[in-house]
Amino acid sequence: MNHTALFENIIKKRSFLCVGLDSEIEKIPSFLLTKKDPVFEFNKRIIDATHKYSVAYKPNVAFYECYGSKGWISLEATVRYIKENYPDIFVIADAKRGDIGNSSRMYAKAFLENMPFDAITVAPYMGEDSVTPFLSYVDKWVVLLALTSNKGADDFQYHSDDGIKLFERVLSVSRKWGTINNMMYVVGATRAEMLKEIRQLVPDHFLLIPGVGTQGGSLEEVARYGLNSKCGLLVNSSRGIIFADNSENFDKVAGDKAKEIQVEMEKYLIERSLI
Amino acid sequence: MNHTALFENIIKKRSFLCVGLDSEIEKIPSFLLTKKDPVFEFNKRIIDATHKYSVAYKPNVAFYECYGSKGWISLEATVRYIKENYPDIFVIADAKRGDIGNSSRMYAKAFLENMPFDAITVAPYMGEDSVTPFLSYVDKWVVLLALTSNKGADDFQYHSDDGIKLFERVLSVSRKWGTINNMMYVVGATRAEMLKEIRQLVPDHFLLIPGVGTQGGSLEEVARYGLNSKCGLLVNSSRGIIFADNSENFDKVAGDKAKEIQVEMEKYLIERSLI
Repeated sequence: MNHTALFENIIKKRSFLCVGLDSEIEKIPSFLLTKKDPVFEFNKRIIDATHKYSVAYKPNVAFYECYGSKGWISLEATVRYIKENYPDIFVIADAKRGDIGNSSRMYAKAFLENMPFDAITVAPYMGEDSVTPFLSYVDKWVVLLALTSNKGADDFQYHSDDGIKLFERVLSVSRKWGTINNMMYVVGATRAEMLKEIRQLVPDHFLLIPGVGTQGGSLEEVARYGLNSKCGLLVNSSRGIIFADNSENFDKVAGDKAKEIQVEMEKYLIERSLI
Repeated sequence: MNHTALFENIIKKRSFLCVGLDSEIEKIPSFLLTKKDPVFEFNKRIIDATHKYSVAYKPNVAFYECYGSKGWISLEATVRYIKENYPDIFVIADAKRGDIGNSSRMYAKAFLENMPFDAITVAPYMGEDSVTPFLSYVDKWVVLLALTSNKGADDFQYHSDDGIKLFERVLSVSRKWGTINNMMYVVGATRAEMLKEIRQLVPDHFLLIPGVGTQGGSLEEVARYGLNSKCGLLVNSSRGIIFADNSENFDKVAGDKAKEIQVEMEKYLIERSLI
């Protein structure tokens, strides 16, 4: 999927919502635990209930990997289910990978070739040759960590060389590695005011914003500072949607929660004359 | 395993060799491809042939993950085989993980709890709360990326704030998160001269040195600048050992290659009066 197709989906859905599939087995409704693959069963019902309101899904690989090969089977089944049933939806492996070139090529193969993910989150510490192997697939994307939403972001991301903070350098250096058709950036929503500055460095790139909801970010502020002429935002919500209810109707409630966010997003898209 | 136990194994084996299990299926001897799990079969024979000369193994998770859940089964079988047969050997998951606290906890569970790895490599970009969840297991280690051996290391790791380079800040800040019993650092061997400087920041920590052999580092230089009073080094070699031969005798040749390196290491340990 390229930049134009992603924007078209946003227009069609009147939403820039990404639903985070942080599907921890301890938190899913207990009646699902008798199923053969409870995590996949949970995801399937969440996806069926929320796909009308979202343009993207983002399985957090940590929550699958913690069950080893079994968890990987749930992950593989989830991404295949989305792509078979809702091929227009953008699917991001939130994997935070990154290694020397040869190893990054293997990670890219895992997520972008053997599994039908559209994108993978990548950590920038090891530089260009750890990122570019992920950029060799047509219509597949790198979502590079720039400024994260956690407390530890302060430890290194603001490390400043001649006034240029590390995350700013990550943005300005890495945007040359790819294009707006294959790179986007993670920017934590708890720092919505930073989006103004970030938009000066990467005016046209899509930004993936985690942390709206449980992590405390405000959707209104994110929209104000982050929207560009092609939307340019995917805003993620995980627990606030997928764990909103624990009953037999969990999927319906998740759908309602996703719709609430979609309605708010629609308002911001209209305000900016994007739809 | 703690710092003392690791040093004792080094004394006993007269070696600080870590064998990298970058077991790419395309590169293993073709006669193994008829086996049920060729990668595990390959690893098993490599381990049996090299364990006398090495104190550590380091499966590179990328090379397993590229085969999805099937690759994870080979990874799980490999680490279990090592721990069941050679419990004194230190096993590092070269996974380069790191995410916000909740996700890092899941990655830690995957590698340090559900699989019997002693250590995992972690990327520092997201700071303290992305690293400390891995430090909550007794006798388990974080191997934090400091200065890597690839070309892209120059992109961000030398980013300098008031004369302090990013990798130096990573060392000086992160050493407070753990102890010499649960943290070590990745330092690329292609920059052996940097080890002198790094030893001033972390005189007592173990350093994991990749890149000796194929990646061009010199073992002699690494030993000169990196050894401390408790050895303090694990030096990795992957392809130079495991893919040294492609015949039915590949394991014997791998053993010979590992022994060659062990003999050289023994010389440096004697020179420093460590054995």
